Amino acid sequence: MSYGSYGGPPGYGGGYSGPGGFASAPPRGPPPGGDPQLWSWFVTVDHDGSGAITAVELERALVNGDWTAFDLDTVKLLMSLFDRDRSGTIGFNEFSSLWKYIKDWQNVFRHFDRDRSGSIDARELQEALHQFGYNLNSQLLTLVQKKYASTVSYRGGALPGITFDRFVRACVVIKQLTESFRRLDTDQDGWVQINYDQFMETVLSLP
Amino acid sequence: MSYGSYGGPPGYGGGYSGPGGFASAPPRGPPPGGDPQLWSWFVTVDHDGSGAITAVELERALVNGDWTAFDLDTVKLLMSLFDRDRSGTIGFNEFSSLWKYIKDWQNVFRHFDRDRSGSIDARELQEALHQFGYNLNSQLLTLVQKKYASTVSYRGGALPGITFDRFVRACVVIKQLTESFRRLDTDQDGWVQINYDQFMETVLSLP
Repeated sequence: MSYGSYGGPPGYGGGYSGPGGFASAPPRGPPPGGDPQLWSWFVTVDHDGSGAITAVELERALVNGDWTAFDLDTVKLLMSLFDRDRSGTIGFNEFSSLWKYIKDWQNVFRHFDRDRSGSIDARELQEALHQFGYNLNSQLLTLVQKKYASTVSYRGGALPGITFDRFVRACVVIKQLTESFRRLDTDQDGWVQINYDQFMETVLSLP
Repeated sequence: MSYGSYGGPPGYGGGYSGPGGFASAPPRGPPPGGDPQLWSWFVTVDHDGSGAITAVELERALVNGDWTAFDLDTVKLLMSLFDRDRSGTIGFNEFSSLWKYIKDWQNVFRHFDRDRSGSIDARELQEALHQFGYNLNSQLLTLVQKKYASTVSYRGGALPGITFDRFVRACVVIKQLTESFRRLDTDQDGWVQINYDQFMETVLSLP
């Protein structure tokens, strides 16, 4: 895998490896339209110059702060959110929205990555989810940390941290699950009654 | 990423790229104990010669038939299944069980990959799940295919196939979900009543 040189997202640099984002540097030259900065990033990610970004091109462009590639499941999540015309590719307008979405998440990630380790540890996760309005008990928090940790547990040590890509996916999954539950809980008593098909559909629709 | 040369799993070779498995060739030399063939594989995967396999070493060793690395989530699933003493690493005995598990899944995958494409398409998935005893309706089957496909949908075409690593994960998830539902459905009427914490716990415990 080659990622090209690292330019980093706009307004972003220095020693801290950061939450993650696009890996390649923008090419020089005047952009044909839209925000020039954004256009130059679009052209860079559009590796084959087709005028649209495929999932493979997006996957190649997105890296975490520790240089690991984004999870396929997170790339698929982004494609499903921003390929609005279901063309299978991301055009320039869709890319603008995707870009903003990633920048917003970068800010969130940086805000909660208090120790600037480049990953979200258990305490940081708890703070983030609490501030988003999700009050998960400690057992659920541990399950989230385990499921989205960027490696398996180390012997006797603290649970490993969550990199940027998996943090975004974790938050989207918790949001989607909580919304699904609220929708099913029509009488708002904290309990839902569902059958097997509804149950499977809810889970299999998650990113 | 370097995978070394491809030896392929025992009794396995030829033109067909296959479902996936360990990428490196076994080193020459007499094994110090256990099944000599298995020991030589263990030594190869144990890159740093520590006598135990870490998640990183396992991740480096496991590739699909199309040479893509295994999903981190599938590697984590395997570690959680076979790191029985919770040491954070896989010893030789644990490796023997892991090896058998992967070989069994390879046979399953090969059986259902009727067109030998190296991935499981929608029809093959339906057959596999049906034969495992899961009767998912067509909407659920499409959700499974989308969620575990090894890329996003192509424009207008059929849903992309599922590579070996993701196929294993899909099957384990469906099994685990169905068992969870059955456990919750104490009166066996096809409906369960659960609260938010149970709902979240069920989903967040999935690989």
